[in-house]
Amino acid sequence: MFEQLNQFFSPKAIAIIGATEREGAIGNVVVRNFRVSNYQGNVYPVNPRYEEVEGFFCYANVQDIKEKIDMAIIAVPSEHVELSVRDCVKQGIRNVLIFSSGFAEMDEAGVKKQDDLVAYCKQEGVRILGPNTLGMINVHEDLALMFQDVGYTVYKKGEVGLVAQSGATGSQVLSMASEEKVGFSYMVATGNQPDLDTIEVLDYYIQDEQTKVAAFYMEGVPSGKRFLSMAEKALEVNKPVVGIKSGRSTAGQKAALSHTASLTGSNEIFDVAAKKYGVTIVEGFEQLIDTLKIFQSGKRPRGNRVATVVVSGAVGILLADAIELNGLQMADLTQETKEKLRQQVASYCSVENPVDIASTFILNEQVFPHAAQTLVDAKEVDMIIIHLPVPTALDPTKFAKMFINIAKTTDKPIFVVPTGLESEMAGVRHYLTENNVPAYRHIEAAVQSAKSIHQYESTRQKHIDKPTTTSSKLSIMIDSNEHLIEENSVKEIMRNHGVPVPNSILVSNVEEISKLSGIAYPVVAKISSVDIAHKSDVGGVMLNIENKEKLKNAYHSILSNVRSSYPEAKIDGLFVEEMVTERFIEFFVGVQNDELFGPVLTCGLGGIFVEVLNDVSRKLGFVSKEEARQMIESLNGVAILKGTRTNVTYDIDALAEAISNISQIANSLEGDWEDFEINPLVVFEEGKGVLALDGLITLKSTSIPIS
Amino acid sequence: MFEQLNQFFSPKAIAIIGATEREGAIGNVVVRNFRVSNYQGNVYPVNPRYEEVEGFFCYANVQDIKEKIDMAIIAVPSEHVELSVRDCVKQGIRNVLIFSSGFAEMDEAGVKKQDDLVAYCKQEGVRILGPNTLGMINVHEDLALMFQDVGYTVYKKGEVGLVAQSGATGSQVLSMASEEKVGFSYMVATGNQPDLDTIEVLDYYIQDEQTKVAAFYMEGVPSGKRFLSMAEKALEVNKPVVGIKSGRSTAGQKAALSHTASLTGSNEIFDVAAKKYGVTIVEGFEQLIDTLKIFQSGKRPRGNRVATVVVSGAVGILLADAIELNGLQMADLTQETKEKLRQQVASYCSVENPVDIASTFILNEQVFPHAAQTLVDAKEVDMIIIHLPVPTALDPTKFAKMFINIAKTTDKPIFVVPTGLESEMAGVRHYLTENNVPAYRHIEAAVQSAKSIHQYESTRQKHIDKPTTTSSKLSIMIDSNEHLIEENSVKEIMRNHGVPVPNSILVSNVEEISKLSGIAYPVVAKISSVDIAHKSDVGGVMLNIENKEKLKNAYHSILSNVRSSYPEAKIDGLFVEEMVTERFIEFFVGVQNDELFGPVLTCGLGGIFVEVLNDVSRKLGFVSKEEARQMIESLNGVAILKGTRTNVTYDIDALAEAISNISQIANSLEGDWEDFEINPLVVFEEGKGVLALDGLITLKSTSIPIS
Repeated sequence: MFEQLNQFFSPKAIAIIGATEREGAIGNVVVRNFRVSNYQGNVYPVNPRYEEVEGFFCYANVQDIKEKIDMAIIAVPSEHVELSVRDCVKQGIRNVLIFSSGFAEMDEAGVKKQDDLVAYCKQEGVRILGPNTLGMINVHEDLALMFQDVGYTVYKKGEVGLVAQSGATGSQVLSMASEEKVGFSYMVATGNQPDLDTIEVLDYYIQDEQTKVAAFYMEGVPSGKRFLSMAEKALEVNKPVVGIKSGRSTAGQKAALSHTASLTGSNEIFDVAAKKYGVTIVEGFEQLIDTLKIFQSGKRPRGNRVATVVVSGAVGILLADAIELNGLQMADLTQETKEKLRQQVASYCSVENPVDIASTFILNEQVFPHAAQTLVDAKEVDMIIIHLPVPTALDPTKFAKMFINIAKTTDKPIFVVPTGLESEMAGVRHYLTENNVPAYRHIEAAVQSAKSIHQYESTRQKHIDKPTTTSSKLSIMIDSNEHLIEENSVKEIMRNHGVPVPNSILVSNVEEISKLSGIAYPVVAKISSVDIAHKSDVGGVMLNIENKEKLKNAYHSILSNVRSSYPEAKIDGLFVEEMVTERFIEFFVGVQNDELFGPVLTCGLGGIFVEVLNDVSRKLGFVSKEEARQMIESLNGVAILKGTRTNVTYDIDALAEAISNISQIANSLEGDWEDFEINPLVVFEEGKGVLALDGLITLKSTSIPIS
Repeated sequence: MFEQLNQFFSPKAIAIIGATEREGAIGNVVVRNFRVSNYQGNVYPVNPRYEEVEGFFCYANVQDIKEKIDMAIIAVPSEHVELSVRDCVKQGIRNVLIFSSGFAEMDEAGVKKQDDLVAYCKQEGVRILGPNTLGMINVHEDLALMFQDVGYTVYKKGEVGLVAQSGATGSQVLSMASEEKVGFSYMVATGNQPDLDTIEVLDYYIQDEQTKVAAFYMEGVPSGKRFLSMAEKALEVNKPVVGIKSGRSTAGQKAALSHTASLTGSNEIFDVAAKKYGVTIVEGFEQLIDTLKIFQSGKRPRGNRVATVVVSGAVGILLADAIELNGLQMADLTQETKEKLRQQVASYCSVENPVDIASTFILNEQVFPHAAQTLVDAKEVDMIIIHLPVPTALDPTKFAKMFINIAKTTDKPIFVVPTGLESEMAGVRHYLTENNVPAYRHIEAAVQSAKSIHQYESTRQKHIDKPTTTSSKLSIMIDSNEHLIEENSVKEIMRNHGVPVPNSILVSNVEEISKLSGIAYPVVAKISSVDIAHKSDVGGVMLNIENKEKLKNAYHSILSNVRSSYPEAKIDGLFVEEMVTERFIEFFVGVQNDELFGPVLTCGLGGIFVEVLNDVSRKLGFVSKEEARQMIESLNGVAILKGTRTNVTYDIDALAEAISNISQIANSLEGDWEDFEINPLVVFEEGKGVLALDGLITLKSTSIPIS
């Protein structure tokens, strides 16, 4: 598969079906682009009406070409596309790039046309890029398969692979980023992407030797599972994945639907998925380009401690603000470092972080690199941000060179912010970035990039130290003929898999109550029926039943309540359970089986915390006990469990274990389930454990419970 | 006062004490700057060692100058500054700009030197800018009183007045913003600012005819009262105030302290203060410059509904995201508008917002202005953002001209984002901005600016419609010999000023209890003592007392508890109060008498909402009932009052009235109070009102209560 895609990304011979001499036409622009390029492969225009197109010999039919063709470009009206593809197949071509629009993005007929085409290609083993795509660029080979004028001299060669669902976006980012000295291997626009989609292209980049960083623009996520597996692979080979996911707001989702009919999916869950394997999500083109600057440098920080060199106290304060407010830390310089700095800077300069060299560098240029070098050498510093405002009298390139030389000696990221007139600073910024010292227009952008690289690297380190835990290969079969799994069965599953549940028994007639033993009063009695999800609403629950006699009465009342509301409900009996009398805090755990990404666990304190304050923590896939503990710690409401107000502390350890076991169950469920909810999971005081007082698994099904 | 400052900001004759021929010296640079300027006034260098400095006749002593001097610049070592100022006074000079450092920023001796100087100047009616300042620039008069090389050709003349505590920052912003075609009237750096400070300069700008927008960089806030009065005045004359307040984080505060010894104050309260009169706080230089672009245009939106014109669906989605996530609204286009657009754009273009004209503008340039004009004319649109990616084949300036022409016909802000290579787009951006159509590097910056102008204008409209209410001229004297005002007295104040409190009585001996009438049991009894703030901690409170006999017992118990803990406590007696038995929600209201800004009211639901979740709302100054209602509505916990979980709704109307009345009391307190706290203020069900169950006023005092 990778081999076939190689021909797609780096073709040695290309046929262009629909090539034309008509100026401005798609089939003309794409051929003309070859005239100004250094592409070394062969180009075969195809059109029965021409003998030559833009100076290249033109074939009447693609089958007339005797050489092996790696890829065909199809630039004919949509109604002729399938025929062209059939010709390609006859010629032996297995890769087609389809510019033509008029498919799924258009109307129902277009959807059908596209489906038929895809089915045919699948059967013949042909891969499709497009339809409705702006094309692709292999930057290193000067190969632009695009129907817009391209600027080969503008594109910078490098190691970032870019894929964009929108061609306009891809080509804009490519130009703008190249100007800022971000270098690229490829830019691919996927268009309607019924076959080759954004994730498969990212996956290719992860395997491709020329690509070290993968960047994307996505509206919809074609497949959650492939996204996750791509992201995990990327993390393992240390190739950062950075991108924009649009449609983050209601308004944006509406716009996306009308643009490419993309269902953008849940942003909350996408963010959780991206975070799991360190995929960096940025906002907008500028942040994307800024972030790529540091990622392409290959530098990686060991921690989040940032030291800064400034020549103005005010900028030092602004930097300190930005660093702290972005969750990074101002490095606390050791005495040793400060003494070294003291010898390098004037007595009135500050050797605390922010290191303020004031205007001393104007008289002695070496102050600047010396201070920077001292911070690079300091063990307590992970990253360095240098603010470089250059008075017009000095040559800023001279300073840039000094920092470039220092950067060569270290793996620590060094960010430089040359400040002054843009007309003078742009060159300095480009020079620095090109030489592996990412340089920024303003300090906020430098701090934002420092944050991104730190987050990536710390996720990667954690992943190396302790690869993402997966659940054991347990398999819990669930009966999928119903719309839900009854509380009784769910509790049985939990009991067997390390989630404590109250003592309970299912009784199917009054006689069994008489013989009941091993259960302590007071008890709760609940109707047991797969047809009833909300038991309380139909009088199906009675609390605080103090003895056998009262339980018998309850049996009759509950059955008659339920029967009168829903005569047709299938009833298993009465579920009798010991009641909790000790002090506890209500917690809830829900696992949603997301269509895209699979099980996502959400947990938090019950009641107002979840219902009013949305104070919850989410994690994708299996949650280990340690991860569960981190989730609990990340809640605002953790203060309640820790006894902030009451001095009563609750059993966080048992809670973490239960959450992990719930996650284990969810990841082992075999069947078409939708939701697994435990609400409440009550947490007792320290050392006294937890109990799942309820448990429900709902199945994917069109029928819904009666109540 | 304004007259004297006029001479400072626009001097016709300037003496420069410490002028020198020594290259690079402060006293040389400042004179040399005049050689390349078009300044029309007179310049008088002063130095006994020269007959001429930089071609200007040099005086031995300032007193030798016979002409009237509007301002003197002092560029001599700090130890000679006071002598120079005395000479100035003798000459009749009443304004001095002191470059010299070595004052309060240096050491204790410097503080003393500065204090003496200020005292002398005050006595003589001399105003000081500095010491330790980089100087000031009057852009319109080509007057740069700076000791750095200045670029007159760089500075753009315009209507923004800039003041910065840090000169380096001021001069950097001035250059960078000028390049982006933000035009300035003045830039003033205030340095140590013991006399002329950032706020007084802003105040000057508010009155100055050449200035329409006031911009600032501040570390500390010199005076909260003056800040507020300046901001209110600015709002009334419709001159927006925009700025950076640094030291927003712990790390930033630490850095500020070491930079200019600025105490940055509480950010939360500063933000509340800024918001009150629509002062826009931005983060960083770039956002400052971006925001100034729209403010200097004079355009004001009537609402928050934004329409967009894009040529790429992806950008449309990103814009929709940014607009919604910034609290603005995507304008919902009417049928009429859509039909008009339909006639202007190709059939496959979207006439929903984002209006997507695709690449049709390449073939027909008029599509772009026509769509923009239609949106300008649409009543349902308040602002328009245009994304203008210009293929290299077209002349972007042509499009810029079209938008400039449209902008001339409307007051609605139009923002343009020219996208492409920065080397090509910078010129387009500058051209647009210069012609009153703010243009931005990226869409996020345009949306951020739209948000700022909307917030400013909506605050201004509200202020015009209903000027900020102030409390009536009530005056409540409080006894300031103690450290706190006793609950009994506080409740008396509340009862008299519209804040319901429970029926209560103060009894000073057991006999009074026998005669007690008009109070309903059960009651609460609390010790009444100005020495005891935390009554429960010393056994000073008993709840749920059911009758007279039990009250008598309680009397003895409480007194003996308190006496045994604190024999020396001054005791007024027992405060007996009816107990609340109805259902309620706990609310709290606290008014803090901030040193800088005066009374700041904070309120929220009690318990975990305030203690764990920090779910509070803050407002400065008097809070009207309507404003109190808005504060309540802004709480996450408002859902509790509205019965989200319970279907029980609480008396929000009575609560709003009580909050307003509490605010009225706080703003009427005469005396050195620190804190006025009502916790809890219990809220009963709809229609049943509220009751303040506690109330405490603490006074500013070094002594603290016993408990």
